[in-house]
Amino acid sequence: MDTAVPSSSPAAHGAVSHPTYPASPKDMANAIRALSMDAVEKAASGHPGMPMGMADVATVLWSRFLKFDHAHPHWPDRDRFVLSAGHGSMLLYSLLYLTGFADMTIDELRRFRQLGSRTAGHPEYGHAAGIETTTGPLGQGIANAVGMALAERLENARFGSELVDHHTYAIVGDGCLMEGISHEAISLAGHLKLNRLIVLWDNNSISIDGPTSLAVSDDQLGRFKASGWNTASVDGHDPEAVAAAIEAAQKSDRPTLIACKTVIGFGAPKKAGTAATHGAPLGAEEVAGAREKLGWPYPPFTVPETILNAWRLAGSRGSAAYEAWTKRHHAHKNRVEFDRQQSGELPAAFAATIAATKKAVSAEAPKLATRQSSQRVLEALSPVMPELLGGSADLTGSNNTKAKDMASVTAENYGGRYIYYGVREHGMAAAMNGIALHGGFAPYGGTFLVFTDYCRPAIRLSALMGQRVVYVMTHDSIGLGEDGPTHQPVEHLAALRAIPNLLVFRPCDTVETAECWALALAERHAPSVLALTRQAVPTLRTKHTDENRSAQGGYVLQEAGHPRQVTLIATGSEVSIAVEARSRLEADGIGTAVVSMPSWELFDRQPAAYREEVLGATAVRVAIEAASVFGWERYVGPRGAVIGMTGFGASAPATDLYKHFGITADATVKAAKARL
Amino acid sequence: MDTAVPSSSPAAHGAVSHPTYPASPKDMANAIRALSMDAVEKAASGHPGMPMGMADVATVLWSRFLKFDHAHPHWPDRDRFVLSAGHGSMLLYSLLYLTGFADMTIDELRRFRQLGSRTAGHPEYGHAAGIETTTGPLGQGIANAVGMALAERLENARFGSELVDHHTYAIVGDGCLMEGISHEAISLAGHLKLNRLIVLWDNNSISIDGPTSLAVSDDQLGRFKASGWNTASVDGHDPEAVAAAIEAAQKSDRPTLIACKTVIGFGAPKKAGTAATHGAPLGAEEVAGAREKLGWPYPPFTVPETILNAWRLAGSRGSAAYEAWTKRHHAHKNRVEFDRQQSGELPAAFAATIAATKKAVSAEAPKLATRQSSQRVLEALSPVMPELLGGSADLTGSNNTKAKDMASVTAENYGGRYIYYGVREHGMAAAMNGIALHGGFAPYGGTFLVFTDYCRPAIRLSALMGQRVVYVMTHDSIGLGEDGPTHQPVEHLAALRAIPNLLVFRPCDTVETAECWALALAERHAPSVLALTRQAVPTLRTKHTDENRSAQGGYVLQEAGHPRQVTLIATGSEVSIAVEARSRLEADGIGTAVVSMPSWELFDRQPAAYREEVLGATAVRVAIEAASVFGWERYVGPRGAVIGMTGFGASAPATDLYKHFGITADATVKAAKARL
Repeated sequence: MDTAVPSSSPAAHGAVSHPTYPASPKDMANAIRALSMDAVEKAASGHPGMPMGMADVATVLWSRFLKFDHAHPHWPDRDRFVLSAGHGSMLLYSLLYLTGFADMTIDELRRFRQLGSRTAGHPEYGHAAGIETTTGPLGQGIANAVGMALAERLENARFGSELVDHHTYAIVGDGCLMEGISHEAISLAGHLKLNRLIVLWDNNSISIDGPTSLAVSDDQLGRFKASGWNTASVDGHDPEAVAAAIEAAQKSDRPTLIACKTVIGFGAPKKAGTAATHGAPLGAEEVAGAREKLGWPYPPFTVPETILNAWRLAGSRGSAAYEAWTKRHHAHKNRVEFDRQQSGELPAAFAATIAATKKAVSAEAPKLATRQSSQRVLEALSPVMPELLGGSADLTGSNNTKAKDMASVTAENYGGRYIYYGVREHGMAAAMNGIALHGGFAPYGGTFLVFTDYCRPAIRLSALMGQRVVYVMTHDSIGLGEDGPTHQPVEHLAALRAIPNLLVFRPCDTVETAECWALALAERHAPSVLALTRQAVPTLRTKHTDENRSAQGGYVLQEAGHPRQVTLIATGSEVSIAVEARSRLEADGIGTAVVSMPSWELFDRQPAAYREEVLGATAVRVAIEAASVFGWERYVGPRGAVIGMTGFGASAPATDLYKHFGITADATVKAAKARL
Repeated sequence: MDTAVPSSSPAAHGAVSHPTYPASPKDMANAIRALSMDAVEKAASGHPGMPMGMADVATVLWSRFLKFDHAHPHWPDRDRFVLSAGHGSMLLYSLLYLTGFADMTIDELRRFRQLGSRTAGHPEYGHAAGIETTTGPLGQGIANAVGMALAERLENARFGSELVDHHTYAIVGDGCLMEGISHEAISLAGHLKLNRLIVLWDNNSISIDGPTSLAVSDDQLGRFKASGWNTASVDGHDPEAVAAAIEAAQKSDRPTLIACKTVIGFGAPKKAGTAATHGAPLGAEEVAGAREKLGWPYPPFTVPETILNAWRLAGSRGSAAYEAWTKRHHAHKNRVEFDRQQSGELPAAFAATIAATKKAVSAEAPKLATRQSSQRVLEALSPVMPELLGGSADLTGSNNTKAKDMASVTAENYGGRYIYYGVREHGMAAAMNGIALHGGFAPYGGTFLVFTDYCRPAIRLSALMGQRVVYVMTHDSIGLGEDGPTHQPVEHLAALRAIPNLLVFRPCDTVETAECWALALAERHAPSVLALTRQAVPTLRTKHTDENRSAQGGYVLQEAGHPRQVTLIATGSEVSIAVEARSRLEADGIGTAVVSMPSWELFDRQPAAYREEVLGATAVRVAIEAASVFGWERYVGPRGAVIGMTGFGASAPATDLYKHFGITADATVKAAKARL
């Protein structure tokens, strides 16, 4: 019965029709409700209310609209489904089990929320196929979905509808829409007219504290309309109404919000419609009552064959469309490049381009701010790496993030490669997560390092999901000068280094900047932060080597002339201060090495012997970094000293501030001598 | 000419009329423009565009509406003025100088952005009277203003219009409105019908990257309307239109947005209306051209006497209203209590209440989650501390933040003491900053510790401004269990400890929780985070003492029985693990002390001798904390060990997770023995 249109009709590549099912939508939806309440009951924790409330909507979507094939969950042209209201994870797990995703077995549902299961409390990307993103922190999913919908349009513009022609659907809750990030996301989506994005709002008027009327009075439809969205409002328990709204949404030239009025915990005889169903098991009595009320007499974790067959049919109904796609894919002239970009593999010319850039700048030895060094690297990489997708949160000229050959992405030109994200740091970061998850691009985006605070929840998710997202964070210290303490990062390097699976780079010159960019883009399973200076710094790596020395995280930049007594460890703009201090100490006969440490994380991965050799087993160690001293004890040890910040910055020219806060060669020399 | 209405007419306490000025509004506005461009020129950095664009609007507001008295800048019933678009700081500095605030001299304007001046790059709270809040990170100011406007209504409900009857005005830019926090703020303000809040939007259609059309297409008025605001749209260069809109806004039963269409850099002959005026000096030629165009022939930093006199008249026009207020204040029956609450002084019964709570719980020795301990403390404090103002970002029952005697704050009852902030962590934090800055309350608000990430920019500003805001952050480790890694804080304690001037408390039982609450509320110049467990922990402080032992940050909870060989240092829920490990080590004859360290910051303030005595100069030190090990090297030193997290958490019951991640007494004993 699959009626996927042949490949000669590209306009319809985005749609997969549906068979006649042997079970009613109501029965299919009740399967989700039963599995959800059973799993929560067994785990003795979880959120039954949302899956029970949205079961009808999800059934319509997954059985009639969503383009996917359970046998090929990584099909690049599948529709993306994002459960932004991630606490309703059992909705997604139920759907994956019911539609027949191989790794989502009934046993996994039984092991909901247990150690080592695929069915974590909230959906975790990578735990099972079909989990397109990690959600739970509210509002992230809708912003991821914006990134995915954008990536789809961008990829479509590059490879055509034969290869890329799909929708992104997101289910959001009241909580998602209260979060500030939702504003950034919907505003960006409306501006870019992302009409392949369809958001289904679980409009149940309940949040954890009780009725949403306790805290919010927004006219959500009015709000989305104000951001350029198409909107609709339906009874979320009326499958035909939901289907009609999705059909209309697919025809819109704008993104669509469908407000689905639902009853949270639908079917629970006493608790339905109340906050009591939100985040706790219903209890045996209420579960029994719900079984009766829903007409679901089956034992826990049991779905009758007819209903399961209906769902499995839904799960395989995309197979013909998948086969048709693979034929088009085989025949596509840019197939190899599409596959490469989709896989995240670096282009053939990548290594040579980085090496050539390093060679040129180590000879030229420019005095540049590392943000400008970064621009230079981007100018070199951009022509050979078309999947590089730049952007900035309204600081393009300051972050130096736009390569000359990058046209801007607009609603009229999805062929562009540079996104003006607007003053939306959090939305940018979460959209980049969505872009990376979608595949096909290497997204990077810039703002000031101090504003990593604004994107922190999304940076954490980049790390938790292991996504290659590059954060280009400039103005990385008091060196930004006059803008003052609100704009000067102090604690941010420490706060970022504390995030697991995040690479934090602070290169000292143009050569290291090229190396750090190379490492960030080569890293397939972790995000990176590049902390870059506003102010000019000298080139210190003037002797070219193809080897990426930054790959070791820290290395001896200058060995001691006399027997080593002191090791100066520095990052970024302070490495040149260490170099100056070293000359003075050496002049006094004190053997002093300078260690440049662009990345703690990579240094910590090195063998102990290497680390000890670099740091100097018996040397007095002094760290210099124009940032909080927090955490440096790891490297300097009890005899050591840290030259850094212990409070907030101030507003003044950068050179005055370095003096005022004592981040100087003088202070370094003094600290070293005092400890000898 | 001051026409402040007598105190018998309380409805008009909010208004101060204006005299006939000896200079035109245009000349008065041009004084702001000239001072702004001159100061930026002299500093060779800064943002002239916004002050020049908004000079007319600001002139109307400050000369005709704003209720203030330059001689009494801390008058509690003054109107609050918030420059949310903080980069336009010269607008505010010019106004403060022109209206005659004593500490804002012309010399300070000359020293704009220089070390030690009052005129930092962005307005810094505390640098000069009249700077009501620190702004610059966009969107914070509008959310602060919401907090101030809410505080005004709450205080009005408590003390009446005779003492509290003022407006809050905020100037916001396009950037503020793009930030997600603006959504949270306006949504909350609309819900609570904060009709004393009037927001003036500098609608200049320019941001740093260029025309705002590059990045945003929102219908801002539609958006504010959707959140329940009154809106108006005016020509920002037409003083009468602006005045009429403000007058109408003052009569509204809802908060008001006035969109002021302006030309950025108004008066600059070539650059006006372009991003070139936003964040850089205009240049000598353009400044000269602007002088000509504006009809301002005076030398830099010179305001002719007539115009200055006009402004000084504006600055003193509130003096009669101030005098009238002081009379009402002296006569007010609750004057003493008003003054106490306004000053932030603790109530007389505070210390005794804390001591009694400690005494009771050290005798009872309950096994409670520290979030429940916190509730117990709040139940005790709430009746004696009416200025305690609670709230939670939709996790009231989980954060245990609502004392029984706290009625909720609604648009119909500003007499309440508990705010349902909704799923708006960032908005909550920034609103609490506004409430604290306004004075009269001790605001605290709860969410999960992991979501400190969502409020981080506002927490940083609490610290930078030194405001007493208490963040009640529960579910403080993997101990939260099944919700999984998205909800389990790992790096958050380290990331918060890295923020200067922020007290981070992680109490181990109910006694310490009471002590930490006491310290947080007694601290007048810093915010605090209370990190509290989801899971139950035993009472360890069973012997009562009135002394606040947590005040030292860390102390010996259990001394070694044998000569001390090992020191176990722990916080919060892991102190009981340390206690268990200690018994085992002692049983093996290994002298072991347990140090509870509820606050690193307070411990670091103790004399070196005390710290060494507590940690044990020669002891092997093992730290135990169910959080990132990042930073613990400070206390354990090179021979020590840290039992903690090195990656993200997982979804499972808490006890399984502690075992899985090896945060156990077993692991602690093993680590200690391995190092002896």
